[in-house]
Amino acid sequence: MKLLKDRILKDGRVLEGNILKVDNFLNHQIDVELFNEMGKELKKRYEGTEITKILTVEVSGIAIAAIVAQYFNVPVVFAKKHAGRNMDKDSYEADVYSYTKDATYKIKVAKKFLSEKDSLLLVDDFLANGQALLGLIELANQSGAKVAGAGIAIEKAFQHGRELVEEKGVRVESLAIIEKMEDRQLIFK
Amino acid sequence: MKLLKDRILKDGRVLEGNILKVDNFLNHQIDVELFNEMGKELKKRYEGTEITKILTVEVSGIAIAAIVAQYFNVPVVFAKKHAGRNMDKDSYEADVYSYTKDATYKIKVAKKFLSEKDSLLLVDDFLANGQALLGLIELANQSGAKVAGAGIAIEKAFQHGRELVEEKGVRVESLAIIEKMEDRQLIFK
Repeated sequence: MKLLKDRILKDGRVLEGNILKVDNFLNHQIDVELFNEMGKELKKRYEGTEITKILTVEVSGIAIAAIVAQYFNVPVVFAKKHAGRNMDKDSYEADVYSYTKDATYKIKVAKKFLSEKDSLLLVDDFLANGQALLGLIELANQSGAKVAGAGIAIEKAFQHGRELVEEKGVRVESLAIIEKMEDRQLIFK
Repeated sequence: MKLLKDRILKDGRVLEGNILKVDNFLNHQIDVELFNEMGKELKKRYEGTEITKILTVEVSGIAIAAIVAQYFNVPVVFAKKHAGRNMDKDSYEADVYSYTKDATYKIKVAKKFLSEKDSLLLVDDFLANGQALLGLIELANQSGAKVAGAGIAIEKAFQHGRELVEEKGVRVESLAIIEKMEDRQLIFK
């Protein structure tokens, strides 16, 4: 998606350790107009596919999921990382390993929000090593929901998360795929 | 806003300790269509007021803010509660006291996203004791940004947050105001 790639080139910054900082339009400040274009594009790519709900995970997936959901006319469910004390005890849970933090955290969804009647689109801002998506797939599997696919803003292809997700039989659509980050330069696929 | 009140009566649940659970449409599963109606209503109430950005706070404010922002044609900035290691060190910070958790947490916004040129609409899902809004006002004040007002989905009037916020000179618009919660019953203003 040219619009997103251009924006990454214009406003993204590559930090040490293959970190791409896009906080001025994607995950701290949010360009809602750009998100709408991303929603249209994902709807196009998933045309003809049944989607009953969009599933994402706290925090940075939420805004994208909400905007994208408008094009599919479905509700969003977001898995919680920081479940408060009022969270339903009756929940699906999955462990997600974070390479960045070298730690495992739990994500949870109340059971009442996912069922075998659902056909889910998983939405997130980044796909890197794929651990967050695998966690969402695990939640879906526990509930019996079908996973129709994943819709990702930015994929770091060199971290190979896509392979792990596709091995689970899940289709992946990423709107900007970064093949390489070298010397603070980005090379898109 | 009748649509929201009706939805609260239909799908909300009052738990012990004056807790209103609305996780099936507001803060775990999200009804994007309802959020759009909330966006239209807030735009109507703030017609003629200059808004350059919407400021909210992790987590449950984000989806509402993103949808509402479409009606104001402005970006969203969300203050971080769980700032990762890539968060700008150069940030505005405020302490927010949580009555629910009897603990104080920090919220942060990178300095580059707020300035004295901004006129902010603060958006959040709940207004109860007002501490989160006071934290956002504090961030705005540090940056020199003007606060044009607050747009809230559900206000618990009996917890008196509005008074504290209005004392700071900030206009508050809430789409559903709950006067009382008694015996698991809700009474709207």
